[in-house]
Amino acid sequence: MNGLAIYPGSFDPLTSGHVDIIHRAVEIFPRLIVAVATNVRKHPTFSEEERLDMIRESLKGLERVEIDSFTGLLVDFAKERGAKVLVRGLRALSDFENEFQMAHMNRRLAPGIETIFMMTSQEHFYISSQTVKEVAHFDGDVSGVVPDAVRKKLTAYNKGS
Amino acid sequence: MNGLAIYPGSFDPLTSGHVDIIHRAVEIFPRLIVAVATNVRKHPTFSEEERLDMIRESLKGLERVEIDSFTGLLVDFAKERGAKVLVRGLRALSDFENEFQMAHMNRRLAPGIETIFMMTSQEHFYISSQTVKEVAHFDGDVSGVVPDAVRKKLTAYNKGS
Amino acid sequence: MNGLAIYPGSFDPLTSGHVDIIHRAVEIFPRLIVAVATNVRKHPTFSEEERLDMIRESLKGLERVEIDSFTGLLVDFAKERGAKVLVRGLRALSDFENEFQMAHMNRRLAPGIETIFMMTSQEHFYISSQTVKEVAHFDGDVSGVVPDAVRKKLTAYNKGS
Amino acid sequence: MNGLAIYPGSFDPLTSGHVDIIHRAVEIFPRLIVAVATNVRKHPTFSEEERLDMIRESLKGLERVEIDSFTGLLVDFAKERGAKVLVRGLRALSDFENEFQMAHMNRRLAPGIETIFMMTSQEHFYISSQTVKEVAHFDGDVSGVVPDAVRKKLTAYNKGS
Amino acid sequence: MNGLAIYPGSFDPLTSGHVDIIHRAVEIFPRLIVAVATNVRKHPTFSEEERLDMIRESLKGLERVEIDSFTGLLVDFAKERGAKVLVRGLRALSDFENEFQMAHMNRRLAPGIETIFMMTSQEHFYISSQTVKEVAHFDGDVSGVVPDAVRKKLTAYNKGS
Amino acid sequence: MNGLAIYPGSFDPLTSGHVDIIHRAVEIFPRLIVAVATNVRKHPTFSEEERLDMIRESLKGLERVEIDSFTGLLVDFAKERGAKVLVRGLRALSDFENEFQMAHMNRRLAPGIETIFMMTSQEHFYISSQTVKEVAHFDGDVSGVVPDAVRKKLTAYNKGS
Repeated sequence: MNGLAIYPGSFDPLTSGHVDIIHRAVEIFPRLIVAVATNVRKHPTFSEEERLDMIRESLKGLERVEIDSFTGLLVDFAKERGAKVLVRGLRALSDFENEFQMAHMNRRLAPGIETIFMMTSQEHFYISSQTVKEVAHFDGDVSGVVPDAVRKKLTAYNKGS
Repeated sequence: MNGLAIYPGSFDPLTSGHVDIIHRAVEIFPRLIVAVATNVRKHPTFSEEERLDMIRESLKGLERVEIDSFTGLLVDFAKERGAKVLVRGLRALSDFENEFQMAHMNRRLAPGIETIFMMTSQEHFYISSQTVKEVAHFDGDVSGVVPDAVRKKLTAYNKGS
Repeated sequence: MNGLAIYPGSFDPLTSGHVDIIHRAVEIFPRLIVAVATNVRKHPTFSEEERLDMIRESLKGLERVEIDSFTGLLVDFAKERGAKVLVRGLRALSDFENEFQMAHMNRRLAPGIETIFMMTSQEHFYISSQTVKEVAHFDGDVSGVVPDAVRKKLTAYNKGS
Repeated sequence: MNGLAIYPGSFDPLTSGHVDIIHRAVEIFPRLIVAVATNVRKHPTFSEEERLDMIRESLKGLERVEIDSFTGLLVDFAKERGAKVLVRGLRALSDFENEFQMAHMNRRLAPGIETIFMMTSQEHFYISSQTVKEVAHFDGDVSGVVPDAVRKKLTAYNKGS
Repeated sequence: MNGLAIYPGSFDPLTSGHVDIIHRAVEIFPRLIVAVATNVRKHPTFSEEERLDMIRESLKGLERVEIDSFTGLLVDFAKERGAKVLVRGLRALSDFENEFQMAHMNRRLAPGIETIFMMTSQEHFYISSQTVKEVAHFDGDVSGVVPDAVRKKLTAYNKGS
Repeated sequence: MNGLAIYPGSFDPLTSGHVDIIHRAVEIFPRLIVAVATNVRKHPTFSEEERLDMIRESLKGLERVEIDSFTGLLVDFAKERGAKVLVRGLRALSDFENEFQMAHMNRRLAPGIETIFMMTSQEHFYISSQTVKEVAHFDGDVSGVVPDAVRKKLTAYNKGS
């Protein structure tokens, strides 16, 4: 009960659903690390630095939250940082299955680290980073489904592409 | 972050899956109330007192855990006890849906109280109180799937019935 | 394309989720029958007349909607009324499966009658008649999750019980 | 590999979906026992003898199939009969979860006995004993969804009730 | 209630399941647009023109159906064409989740446009464009699972590849 | 009932979950072919020969099991080898749907060949070839979740990459 929890993700980009989970999690845990996974094998839309910037700007003023990134296994990052709890948001059924399998694999790799799940609020349960990017690509309105800093970045990205 | 969490359930009877969640939850929260729901409309196999006894005996020596019971809405009990977190175990998909709906209804009834979910360990994910009672009814071996105190009670119950 | 659709259900009682589907359906179909199923084998909380009354009061002023009840097979009622479309709301996954099976059975019984599904709005997807009754039973606040006429009836029912 | 398999169920009553699985299973296993579960706690629509009669008549002439009934745990019956394989039909998702839990519990109770699953043919996947009884109760046409012997029995039952 | 509905999809290629939904939808809506989505980011097997040709030939003689294509957001196309209803076929559970999320996103983007779902007939529920292409690639027989015009095109495609 | 069953898969690489199913299947069927699917369109991590080698080494000494590979439709391979049964392991819900669709398509393509499903043991239900590769890529410990021969190969692969 060191009170340190990690909320990991690709955050490519951060959505209002993610922000909702972060606000709920800081009500429960004394300290929270929002951790951007930077797996070199994947091809994210936004670079590590861009993703960190959008998160920093969107969470400005939120206390007890640290923003970081990691490469490699999540459980190794958790050990390194001394965190005992991993927080994951559940939106939908398909999330559930993947999360279930990941949680069991992580438990096997690091038995002392526990995964807990929180429900995304009903306003956000249908939002995914992927959907947001598709809507933004066709100039659809994404205000409300992403933080303002992300909306601006998406607009700039589409103009540049 | 008062650190008080509630793990509610019918516990009719307590299974090894419940015990597993309790042990995981006390690693995360400083204080945990295991709370037996006593809804007069339902017809439990074991009385409130029997269920409390089995839990007390099965959790003997486990620190920072309190055992209690409640009637009425869970969120009212949580407010009364000053708890901010409800803990629920997820075993399977059908759990997920019911839990999802309950969590959202509870959030509506009491916005400041958060539900978190933990994964039952894979050894226990197929165990339910209902299955345990059916197996015990036909003299099937339930050692391992329920705590010892529950196993004895189930045997006595079947002899008496 | 006679434009007559039926929205069948137990409506024991009507919820805000049902009302949401009704409002969406009248935007699509010229005429809609809200049809209370009165299966004598089931034991509803509210009588056929009470359920019809709550629906009538809750839908007051809504045009092109008729309120009726039926006993027996839904497809026989549809044939009798000359309707070609059955409307069902989908809230969640478990709905989906039951609805899928019912739709196929109805298609077999009456090949000319089609079932269509509409998504309950995200504010209401976690509301069921059963949950509403449980919350109301313990004096939980159900305003917003049921129409006002139903809320009053539930309060009266609990006082009388 | 003694080649003896058991296909257990309530068969209250036998449907065309069950018959489909039986025909598929006898193509795979040299000998098959269709086993009616007679759990005294449940309240079947048809008596053990009626259910056995309907099965006998519906499977008349099918070779290598034996019809039997059992009380108690399925795995105990399997051991008694010397069967190593339990056959279950999967229709839908909700079947899947229950079956998954039962299969794991049975594996725990009797590690040497294996459960295998077969897919009900697509013509029958929406048929359940429960649905069939509801349709028949309201004089709906159940020819094709149950064997002829069952259809007659259902008609007689409804007239008598 | 202008009676215009859109049935959008990739149709890469059209399957008998799609044709089934189209025939059901024209029984419900006075006018139906079958709309091929041409997202430049995806890499379809067949070009926009080839997909439109296969649809035209397969639906020849079907009245009140128009065939069109669109780029960009579906809801923008619907507004442009003055349609109020989007029709989607549901085959399976995984469809359900994606469709659920898309329907909610579309509702947010265009509140006046409603999505309705229809059940693919049980003969076709296991057919997807992807599966059809895989079977055809290995010279498996796809007659019955795609219209004849599509079958011919698939054969030509495999010979050419 | 020629007693020959096929257990097909990509096995890229073989996991302990696969090995579990193989051991269960040989208890039921007199002869089992473990068949590596070599679809030229996919880009496996390990070559056909590497996958066959890992399987051969991991199953060394297991009787009545043959190891083979095939290109093209599984049902064509089954006919060629004279097998009447296809064995598939079910781990999770998403497996279930894909498997359901494949089994129905295969039944259409080859009505005399039956698919049966077996439950992966609960220790292995969260293991997939994909997860194993990701964990191994970051030097996570995969002993226990893959056979020893696969673990060594994964280590060598990562060093070489």
